[in-house]
Amino acid sequence: MAIDPKTASNLSFILNKPRDVAFVDRPTPTLQSEHDVLVAVNYTGICGSDVHYWQNGAIGHFVVKDPMVLGHESAGTVVEVGSAVTSLKTGDRIALEPGYPCRRCAPCLSGKYNLCPEMKFAATPPYHGTLTGFWSAPADFCYKLPDNVSQQEGALIEPLAVAVHIVRQAVVTPGQSVVVMGAGPVGLLCAAVARAFGASIVVSVDIVQSKLDFATSFCSTHAYVSQRVSAEENAANIRKLADLPNGADVVIDASGAEPSIQTCLHTVRTGGTYVQGGMGKDNITFPIMAMCLKEVTAKGSFRYGSGDYKLAIELVASGKVEVRKLISEVVAFKDAEKAFNKVKQGEVIKILIGGPNEKVA
Amino acid sequence: MAIDPKTASNLSFILNKPRDVAFVDRPTPTLQSEHDVLVAVNYTGICGSDVHYWQNGAIGHFVVKDPMVLGHESAGTVVEVGSAVTSLKTGDRIALEPGYPCRRCAPCLSGKYNLCPEMKFAATPPYHGTLTGFWSAPADFCYKLPDNVSQQEGALIEPLAVAVHIVRQAVVTPGQSVVVMGAGPVGLLCAAVARAFGASIVVSVDIVQSKLDFATSFCSTHAYVSQRVSAEENAANIRKLADLPNGADVVIDASGAEPSIQTCLHTVRTGGTYVQGGMGKDNITFPIMAMCLKEVTAKGSFRYGSGDYKLAIELVASGKVEVRKLISEVVAFKDAEKAFNKVKQGEVIKILIGGPNEKVA
Amino acid sequence: MAIDPKTASNLSFILNKPRDVAFVDRPTPTLQSEHDVLVAVNYTGICGSDVHYWQNGAIGHFVVKDPMVLGHESAGTVVEVGSAVTSLKTGDRIALEPGYPCRRCAPCLSGKYNLCPEMKFAATPPYHGTLTGFWSAPADFCYKLPDNVSQQEGALIEPLAVAVHIVRQAVVTPGQSVVVMGAGPVGLLCAAVARAFGASIVVSVDIVQSKLDFATSFCSTHAYVSQRVSAEENAANIRKLADLPNGADVVIDASGAEPSIQTCLHTVRTGGTYVQGGMGKDNITFPIMAMCLKEVTAKGSFRYGSGDYKLAIELVASGKVEVRKLISEVVAFKDAEKAFNKVKQGEVIKILIGGPNEKVA
Amino acid sequence: MAIDPKTASNLSFILNKPRDVAFVDRPTPTLQSEHDVLVAVNYTGICGSDVHYWQNGAIGHFVVKDPMVLGHESAGTVVEVGSAVTSLKTGDRIALEPGYPCRRCAPCLSGKYNLCPEMKFAATPPYHGTLTGFWSAPADFCYKLPDNVSQQEGALIEPLAVAVHIVRQAVVTPGQSVVVMGAGPVGLLCAAVARAFGASIVVSVDIVQSKLDFATSFCSTHAYVSQRVSAEENAANIRKLADLPNGADVVIDASGAEPSIQTCLHTVRTGGTYVQGGMGKDNITFPIMAMCLKEVTAKGSFRYGSGDYKLAIELVASGKVEVRKLISEVVAFKDAEKAFNKVKQGEVIKILIGGPNEKVA
Repeated sequence: MAIDPKTASNLSFILNKPRDVAFVDRPTPTLQSEHDVLVAVNYTGICGSDVHYWQNGAIGHFVVKDPMVLGHESAGTVVEVGSAVTSLKTGDRIALEPGYPCRRCAPCLSGKYNLCPEMKFAATPPYHGTLTGFWSAPADFCYKLPDNVSQQEGALIEPLAVAVHIVRQAVVTPGQSVVVMGAGPVGLLCAAVARAFGASIVVSVDIVQSKLDFATSFCSTHAYVSQRVSAEENAANIRKLADLPNGADVVIDASGAEPSIQTCLHTVRTGGTYVQGGMGKDNITFPIMAMCLKEVTAKGSFRYGSGDYKLAIELVASGKVEVRKLISEVVAFKDAEKAFNKVKQGEVIKILIGGPNEKVA
Repeated sequence: MAIDPKTASNLSFILNKPRDVAFVDRPTPTLQSEHDVLVAVNYTGICGSDVHYWQNGAIGHFVVKDPMVLGHESAGTVVEVGSAVTSLKTGDRIALEPGYPCRRCAPCLSGKYNLCPEMKFAATPPYHGTLTGFWSAPADFCYKLPDNVSQQEGALIEPLAVAVHIVRQAVVTPGQSVVVMGAGPVGLLCAAVARAFGASIVVSVDIVQSKLDFATSFCSTHAYVSQRVSAEENAANIRKLADLPNGADVVIDASGAEPSIQTCLHTVRTGGTYVQGGMGKDNITFPIMAMCLKEVTAKGSFRYGSGDYKLAIELVASGKVEVRKLISEVVAFKDAEKAFNKVKQGEVIKILIGGPNEKVA
Repeated sequence: MAIDPKTASNLSFILNKPRDVAFVDRPTPTLQSEHDVLVAVNYTGICGSDVHYWQNGAIGHFVVKDPMVLGHESAGTVVEVGSAVTSLKTGDRIALEPGYPCRRCAPCLSGKYNLCPEMKFAATPPYHGTLTGFWSAPADFCYKLPDNVSQQEGALIEPLAVAVHIVRQAVVTPGQSVVVMGAGPVGLLCAAVARAFGASIVVSVDIVQSKLDFATSFCSTHAYVSQRVSAEENAANIRKLADLPNGADVVIDASGAEPSIQTCLHTVRTGGTYVQGGMGKDNITFPIMAMCLKEVTAKGSFRYGSGDYKLAIELVASGKVEVRKLISEVVAFKDAEKAFNKVKQGEVIKILIGGPNEKVA
Repeated sequence: MAIDPKTASNLSFILNKPRDVAFVDRPTPTLQSEHDVLVAVNYTGICGSDVHYWQNGAIGHFVVKDPMVLGHESAGTVVEVGSAVTSLKTGDRIALEPGYPCRRCAPCLSGKYNLCPEMKFAATPPYHGTLTGFWSAPADFCYKLPDNVSQQEGALIEPLAVAVHIVRQAVVTPGQSVVVMGAGPVGLLCAAVARAFGASIVVSVDIVQSKLDFATSFCSTHAYVSQRVSAEENAANIRKLADLPNGADVVIDASGAEPSIQTCLHTVRTGGTYVQGGMGKDNITFPIMAMCLKEVTAKGSFRYGSGDYKLAIELVASGKVEVRKLISEVVAFKDAEKAFNKVKQGEVIKILIGGPNEKVA
């Protein structure tokens, strides 16, 4: 279906203030530079952060002061290309990387653009999100989807890129053992990416049995239901379950929960690696001497950077990570608030909102 | 002075139980293998862990059950060499690496022998220490001192190797900014090693002004007295003091103190590195989201490993780290308990115990 | 079948001088240390170096001066364990790592034991090889085979470990493009390991079409028959074939042939990695400016080291590398010379010699 | 001295065709973007590549087709700032990084902007150089000089950044031994940077004794005059001279000469690193098996990238590399051709051309 952005509506799903959303027809954006393309948004997934802004109006020091379009997990179709763009053409189906760095600071020039202090990230105040008709973006942040990757899958590249970044921070290599705390979308994708990176043992850990059942059907070799015992005991149980008497090579926290993080440090082997991927409380009780005496390498992971989107798409195209299995439901744009409610209730793994230009391709 | 280990006394300074030490003439050790050498001990420094065993009889799960010779920071003189030894000869003056790994486990074979689970470390129960007349050790763990490095300096190679290992874990490179929490012996040596590695800015932090005065005279470019304010405020003060608005490239905790560790995480820049070198409480309140969102690389550091002793000696020989400045006093072997008391009282930076074979060389 | 090494024959296949081999019943070895095990040899593969010693009596400065048992690619069964061994027991089926480092030099202590100058490597003069009844080895160099890995597969762990080491030197990561020059056993295994490491594109290059046919059936995504044209032209053809206009992320030479090595440097992308795995002429004409101006990282690869055997076994056990497909034929021990002739003639991919204790398990 | 770029002359030193240079008053450039600054050029050094273009009109596939301003080693003074620039202000004295990448390709986004295929590099056809009155550049490629670094020293930051990049590619760490082939400006600076990185032993090698005399007075611990013997013999001599029986940890070729490169591979230790920094013949006879069997890591080095200019300035500001000692002479702008002749004759280490706006600051 062809579409003319100059005449089409640019209906957007907007957060006015906490728990107050609306549909607004906003002006269609124009290209900001000759390096940009204009994208008609086909599908958008909902992230925990979207729900958090909706419910609370803020995450840490990011506070929604003015009405803000929500959403940042999107795939779309190119409808206009800037004069300097050679990598894309009208009609190309793309996954949309939703954060744009300054390209000039020390982190940007050193290949760590995710750490750019000037980052403009979709649906992070004061920047609007992608639950909108059209989106203008630099062409190098729009990634053409191969023929065997659908636009619905394309909307899942964003959370998959988060997982790719986490697993890369962990430097997972073939034959390793990996424990992932949390079996929400990012935890599941971390487990799947770890497997795709060649991990021999991947243990998913959660407090909900049904999530773990999905995990083992999806990718994990083992699953463990966290018990209401000490972190040391949960760690001992995980080591026993997966036959890792010396501990796991890599542990990833994708939960943000304090007991999970503590368990990470007792589960990892001497000389192993722990990556903190999940968001949670600013300060927790942390087994610092376990980190010190075992010479653990601990790393944070924040969003995604150079090469992560490209590899995420490759993992889907090659069949190594079947992201479509995470899609619980696809709803129409007009039902966006309903979709947000379902995510809030924890009723779905991943829900996609179609449109507003669902059929443009 | 030549000495015959077969007839000489092997007087040792032994911990019977907490706060109960004695001098005992124990049998002189013999070479355990053709790869070993026998060393007459010239000088031994006192480490905080020695004092801790003396006062408490245990560190973590290491408990002194039987009488144990104390000491592990020693330099000595080779008095006998095994038949397979080619690197050393009688009369060589050496620094003594006091922990011996199994050479056969995965950490040993991968170059991380400090993480060997079978490590036999001097003055760590159940293994005796080096405050004794003679010591048998594998030749490859005895490092010949260059002519311009004295045996007293040789006894300081051990704590310097601890600092070298910490700074290597931090991967300090020229031009970087480094903040070191703690200005005790290891903190001071970390600061000095960081300077020797080319750090442009080295900030020492402590609660005692006199230690900081020494730090700046010894190596540090800046010094900060920790205030009774929040970790964020102390961090802000350190950043301001050293003109590091984005934070420090590297932060090292050599104190083990909870507020210092917290300050580390708020002082390090986005994408920077934090190394935990000091020992303290098992669990602390830790700013985990600072680590996560800034993508900090955090590492533990445990003792020393491949190449650390060799580099420590080189740093002394080249004049880059003047360890002799740390020697507050040298006491005779018979005054060992007095020396331990001075360390306990915090009256000295580093005190050396001469002997029992002080003059053998 | 149980066997008593004290009474059993220790028949060995021995090279007296170039092109002069014999079967000799040599004394059964005894354990050299309490850390050793005695292994009854079940199967042994033939390596190009075995054939080279057989034909020429020397490789580089390694010259066969005294009669030497050939063979170093073996699997066997433990028939006796030293008193300090806890990792193995009699009856365990194992893959045999055939080179034993000193454990005391700088390379050994830093985790690079393959670079040990004191290495004692099987069938490298003056050390005997493994085409013999019994073999004494340190237990940590004998790797227990999982139940689903046969002893015949076990004999292929050695060349697979060579390939694992090469691919690790190349730091192949998921999604990369890899070109492997040479489709002999090591080249094929490099291609397979690269795939197992997640490479999206693996191009095998050889001058023999039938070898390439096997490569694509075994693991490679593309195959290219080298033409009698310049290295630049062959490189351009490879780039075109695999749709890599900017060149390959990684190129591996497993051929040792001068034109192949030249082609490597023109095939690799700017900033890519080239690993030299194959042996050939000491000096060749080399496109040094291509390496310089493209900032290529070039590495040699020599045998295998820490963790390589373990990962090789894991790759077989997990089904990621089907080494059994490389076995062209298994011959009886008495036909060892016949087997050497077949390898010399290039009639096989990999031939195994059974025994002399083929059925011990 | 203040200057108004709108009225001032923009006298430039231009290469019309091989061996045909002229002074031309070209239009003063204007800022290309709000991120740019305009710089009055104070001093410019002459590089071997400038001389090569002057004499031959081409380097490799870079061919001078239209008249081109020469020069790219410059320091200057900011005379105008774009509206988005916050890091610089009028009057700031700066070192000028003379190559501008696209900021959008894979190398740029991954922190390797020196490998950008769209790089616009000064005095590399078709781009003009910096021997001109005014120069417009992105502010992030103009580095403010500290008060204790002069503009003449600022003009030497460019070759120093080349050396910093080479030494970083070699990952020189404290205590290492480094051999540098070539004692021209870049070789000397590599040796000095290696010392500043903590190398204990730095051997300079050249065929000219007087250059080596300068090297040892400048930074090197040893110097070796290359003999007309085999590469193996020269390597053996170097190893003996510097007491490196196992070879050097790092070898750097800053000469581009075939025998020097060969000597590199025989001088480096097993497991060591060799970096090719100098330009020379496209293809040379190369000891490939030395690289393979010793598991040498070889790297190319091309220009400079993220952080190199910043560190180069820091090394000068801290007194670790005294670049001013390399300045043989400073000539007036009108004598530019004379200066080129002196470089061609090899009469100087580094000659600076003042101006045309020498006194603007």
